[in-house]
Amino acid sequence: MPETIRAGILGATGAVGQRFIQALENHPWFEITCLAASEKSAGKKYGKAANWRLESKMPDSVTGMEIVPVDPKKVDADVVFSALPSSFAKTVEAEFAKEGFVVASNASAFRMEKDVPLVVPEVNADHLGLIDVQQDKRGWDGYIVTNPNCSTIIMVPTLKPLMAFGLESVQVATMQAVSGAGYDGVASMAIMDNIIPYIGSEEEKMESEPLKLLGEFDGSEVVPADIKISASCNRVPVMDGHTEAIWAKMTDNPTPEQVRQAFLNFKPDLGDLPTEPEQVLIVRDEPDRPQPRLDRSMGKGMSITVGRIREGIRYMAMGHNTIRGAAGASVLNAELLHKMGKL
Amino acid sequence: MPETIRAGILGATGAVGQRFIQALENHPWFEITCLAASEKSAGKKYGKAANWRLESKMPDSVTGMEIVPVDPKKVDADVVFSALPSSFAKTVEAEFAKEGFVVASNASAFRMEKDVPLVVPEVNADHLGLIDVQQDKRGWDGYIVTNPNCSTIIMVPTLKPLMAFGLESVQVATMQAVSGAGYDGVASMAIMDNIIPYIGSEEEKMESEPLKLLGEFDGSEVVPADIKISASCNRVPVMDGHTEAIWAKMTDNPTPEQVRQAFLNFKPDLGDLPTEPEQVLIVRDEPDRPQPRLDRSMGKGMSITVGRIREGIRYMAMGHNTIRGAAGASVLNAELLHKMGKL
Amino acid sequence: MPETIRAGILGATGAVGQRFIQALENHPWFEITCLAASEKSAGKKYGKAANWRLESKMPDSVTGMEIVPVDPKKVDADVVFSALPSSFAKTVEAEFAKEGFVVASNASAFRMEKDVPLVVPEVNADHLGLIDVQQDKRGWDGYIVTNPNCSTIIMVPTLKPLMAFGLESVQVATMQAVSGAGYDGVASMAIMDNIIPYIGSEEEKMESEPLKLLGEFDGSEVVPADIKISASCNRVPVMDGHTEAIWAKMTDNPTPEQVRQAFLNFKPDLGDLPTEPEQVLIVRDEPDRPQPRLDRSMGKGMSITVGRIREGIRYMAMGHNTIRGAAGASVLNAELLHKMGKL
Amino acid sequence: MPETIRAGILGATGAVGQRFIQALENHPWFEITCLAASEKSAGKKYGKAANWRLESKMPDSVTGMEIVPVDPKKVDADVVFSALPSSFAKTVEAEFAKEGFVVASNASAFRMEKDVPLVVPEVNADHLGLIDVQQDKRGWDGYIVTNPNCSTIIMVPTLKPLMAFGLESVQVATMQAVSGAGYDGVASMAIMDNIIPYIGSEEEKMESEPLKLLGEFDGSEVVPADIKISASCNRVPVMDGHTEAIWAKMTDNPTPEQVRQAFLNFKPDLGDLPTEPEQVLIVRDEPDRPQPRLDRSMGKGMSITVGRIREGIRYMAMGHNTIRGAAGASVLNAELLHKMGKL
Repeated sequence: MPETIRAGILGATGAVGQRFIQALENHPWFEITCLAASEKSAGKKYGKAANWRLESKMPDSVTGMEIVPVDPKKVDADVVFSALPSSFAKTVEAEFAKEGFVVASNASAFRMEKDVPLVVPEVNADHLGLIDVQQDKRGWDGYIVTNPNCSTIIMVPTLKPLMAFGLESVQVATMQAVSGAGYDGVASMAIMDNIIPYIGSEEEKMESEPLKLLGEFDGSEVVPADIKISASCNRVPVMDGHTEAIWAKMTDNPTPEQVRQAFLNFKPDLGDLPTEPEQVLIVRDEPDRPQPRLDRSMGKGMSITVGRIREGIRYMAMGHNTIRGAAGASVLNAELLHKMGKL
Repeated sequence: MPETIRAGILGATGAVGQRFIQALENHPWFEITCLAASEKSAGKKYGKAANWRLESKMPDSVTGMEIVPVDPKKVDADVVFSALPSSFAKTVEAEFAKEGFVVASNASAFRMEKDVPLVVPEVNADHLGLIDVQQDKRGWDGYIVTNPNCSTIIMVPTLKPLMAFGLESVQVATMQAVSGAGYDGVASMAIMDNIIPYIGSEEEKMESEPLKLLGEFDGSEVVPADIKISASCNRVPVMDGHTEAIWAKMTDNPTPEQVRQAFLNFKPDLGDLPTEPEQVLIVRDEPDRPQPRLDRSMGKGMSITVGRIREGIRYMAMGHNTIRGAAGASVLNAELLHKMGKL
Repeated sequence: MPETIRAGILGATGAVGQRFIQALENHPWFEITCLAASEKSAGKKYGKAANWRLESKMPDSVTGMEIVPVDPKKVDADVVFSALPSSFAKTVEAEFAKEGFVVASNASAFRMEKDVPLVVPEVNADHLGLIDVQQDKRGWDGYIVTNPNCSTIIMVPTLKPLMAFGLESVQVATMQAVSGAGYDGVASMAIMDNIIPYIGSEEEKMESEPLKLLGEFDGSEVVPADIKISASCNRVPVMDGHTEAIWAKMTDNPTPEQVRQAFLNFKPDLGDLPTEPEQVLIVRDEPDRPQPRLDRSMGKGMSITVGRIREGIRYMAMGHNTIRGAAGASVLNAELLHKMGKL
Repeated sequence: MPETIRAGILGATGAVGQRFIQALENHPWFEITCLAASEKSAGKKYGKAANWRLESKMPDSVTGMEIVPVDPKKVDADVVFSALPSSFAKTVEAEFAKEGFVVASNASAFRMEKDVPLVVPEVNADHLGLIDVQQDKRGWDGYIVTNPNCSTIIMVPTLKPLMAFGLESVQVATMQAVSGAGYDGVASMAIMDNIIPYIGSEEEKMESEPLKLLGEFDGSEVVPADIKISASCNRVPVMDGHTEAIWAKMTDNPTPEQVRQAFLNFKPDLGDLPTEPEQVLIVRDEPDRPQPRLDRSMGKGMSITVGRIREGIRYMAMGHNTIRGAAGASVLNAELLHKMGKL
């Protein structure tokens, strides 16, 4: 792969935008050529405009870059990674795709559109076939590919291997980190010594997105999986890492050990993508794992750790919500697109 | 009621012991006459021996009291409230009951014994009929009455009104406060910015105790309720207040509004016991309630707040684990015993 | 005192506004007759407009009150308690005072104006003589009385008794609670597992306000105390309660025990004001006190707890920042004004 | 350097012991050949005995190692890194030194002994001359070298460049992370939503150790620096990273800018030791830095970040307490010893 792919980041100053920068720093294929953000930041140097809040240093390569507006005419890139708010993404991402950009989006705006792939590479890479459908239908030169919501993406790779047992229904209670709401999303007075048993639209996303992700692409459309999901979403005082208590009902009634083996045997091969973790699912047998602080960085934040597989079938799943659940997810999608020759 | 009832506290220096002192301070019926604790503390003044960690001041009345050993011969009281560790409670509580004490216990040791009442006054006051069975069978002058585990007690008063709809099965994911483990139970390094998806024996208790509590007392024994419960228990960085995401499956398939009305109409009348809250269940209609920090003190810590009643049926319940879930529960039991003339 | 004094709250929906409501609920002298807030809230019922975040229940008496704009023509009250942002307070409080209202303000806008009393009743009640100066000079029917910044007010009552030893200079490092910044003031991502070593303008306030508070009123103006203060202010992940590490240099070089006795003997008599704590300074001799969680509620949040008095002289002081440091301070000022016949 | 140096860790299972393992994993000079811990752990595999709580994975190289007792006869190593509790270290470290081991100790037991070097390489590498004195006096084949207490070590490299201005006195208020007390050192109920204004013996260490570190070695002994230090130490709810508010009084009365330049120019050259950070002091000019969460990992945890240099002279310093302040400090000392040919 001789050439570097030029990457832009839309919404580069926010929490997920910063994770995109972190994910693309020293990337073997992609090079950040453009940082785009709201009018308030456009024209400023990234080092001045962004309130960097990651534990690692802001990469020197972006500190001096001038932020451009979120406008396809101002953005110099082959692929744009979108960390835009959903309301804004609806219009803007379409403009970019129309202008020929590959848009790898973390926004929810297009996820459930019939002709837009909603993809987790380890789960449903074949759904990328929708790109042709999308371009045909919309007449765009570029296209949009999306990844699911952060709480969905941590659950779905654990459901995929359970499909073989005849997965019927899922109940999931989440304990989600504050970073999922963005920098100013959760006030300290709201969450210190507290739990908030509600996250707007989160349950709806968890109940619908997995059906598309686990559905079958028949060459022209995705037939949603026939599973019933019931979610109860909570915000907890944790910085990063969504933890989920999952019940999965299956017609085959597997034992916990059979489920454990299915998790261990779930080894999708993406062909060594740079952001692909060695193990998408890490199974921990200790009684008290996974824990977000101890396990969220596994696989550089791209692995999902599962544990406590019990009769029920019940188990816990945990993953890094702004890496596996956001920026890393989009980057992995783009890597797969590149490997497939579509980028 | 002319006379004051003399109350002793077993395990008076620990987290629950301190809540007992708080609950009995200025109590209209009970007066603390005796504080008992381990050999390490016995002989010391309470003000010196106890590491008081409640936000209210240590009552002046106990500061100068000398701690006695946990021994029926050394304890001067009519009723003893037990905050003993379960392993120790097994032997010691029996000794107290044999010697004629009424033992109101928060320990798990005797909860599931067939002839020992496990009671939440608003749920199954009639189970106190087991006291006679117990005294007959064991030949004790006194007797033992127990209250359930803290996570059980927050769920069961919400299940009781659902029995009328034909409650079949329950799934519950808990988010439990650190105070549930006692003062030194959870290290800060273990729980800061973290969740621990495991609490030893907690799921077993939540899956068995409610069956006894919701069972029927036929005059000689309690026939357990025929419900299947599946629990997933988690420790979260919250000081006080257990939050629970509950799914309840009922044969009658009630609507969320029917369930809401059932909660609103659940008004057991205990006859104005001093520790009885005005409302055992408080229904909040806001989307983001209950929250432990905001709701745990309702009803002086004795109310359980429910909310987010949705299709499923799913809802959230939250209550104060060391008041409603421990000390307050035992005191309420003792108040009921007094009202019934059994103390 | 036959009549009830009608009290309005300016900025009633915010964190300090809520503490004002809590402080005035069941007050023996004051009755809340008016809640004023920004245009966004005006016209709405308080129960709808305010996002109540205190652990106690919103008083029923205010739930249904309609919020009025912050406008002297719309406010029905004898005294208004101001929890306004400082920029806004500059204009608005003057309007209220001009229209005849007594303004008891927690805002910083007028604190350092020469003719405006900056008062902590236990420290410098006599400075209220400035009211006449203020009314003469400005031709107002009403007047403004202010209380200091929250971090100042927790330190100054400890410095007052040290004046007798020839207080020369003070160094203070603060660890301030998040509630000091208002509900949305500190994002959880900013402060979880973190410290922010900076609070805008806080050090300037701590270095100037105490000089006025400890100064002498000569009948026409306040001559500032000749003390040099150097402050280093930090935000910490604590909900309520500012903790301060203080070094005080005095010409008389008192021993720690002499300082301790001076704190114990500091018993200003305000004549039993309703909000006055039994002890303005509580001296704790344990090595590990004061602690914000355990001590902030002492004296219903109006006591300041001191401890660790050591050679240096060094000591710790801690108090509740939104009660003693804000709403309670303004209410105590108003109570004193009433007692003096000025309200 | 053809040969690998064999390294043992004493107290390998604890918080600092785990940081030693992390620091020595993939070390270019040292190889872990022995893990020693208390009798309770001895004989077990490290992977079973240690409760690993770091965010990175336990290195595969140690998982299967069998833990040996803390006994020079059982330990196979050239150098031992000691994370022992101080009471135990007093006897045990002497035994190891007597038996010919180089002991790089993080314990406080020997720090203030006249013939034992207390060293921060960037500050007083020349004090290692005491090794000869120590061996002569005690007749040991090996020797002990110590590093200071974690709160001392974060302050001292900032004081070193101030010596040139005639440093007279220092006042320091610390805000220390819970990891400084070890895994079970601080209960969550003690520190959540709280501050503990006391850490046993910490102030004494901060007031004495810097005098030795900043003193002059005259060939036979260290003449302590003539500085007066007054410390006020606090525990805060932060996982890692000690933050310190420092006042430094100097006879030359430098301006903040002069102090800033002195910090920037403090570039001790240790000759590229593996654990040496690029910058021992990182100067941040933003008003709100340093912050523990954002800055503790700088220089892989070995840099100290300073900021807020103001008149006074006041400034903030922050560093990672279990890396720069413990395990990393001992390893850096050992690297320096190796470079000097003493190991």
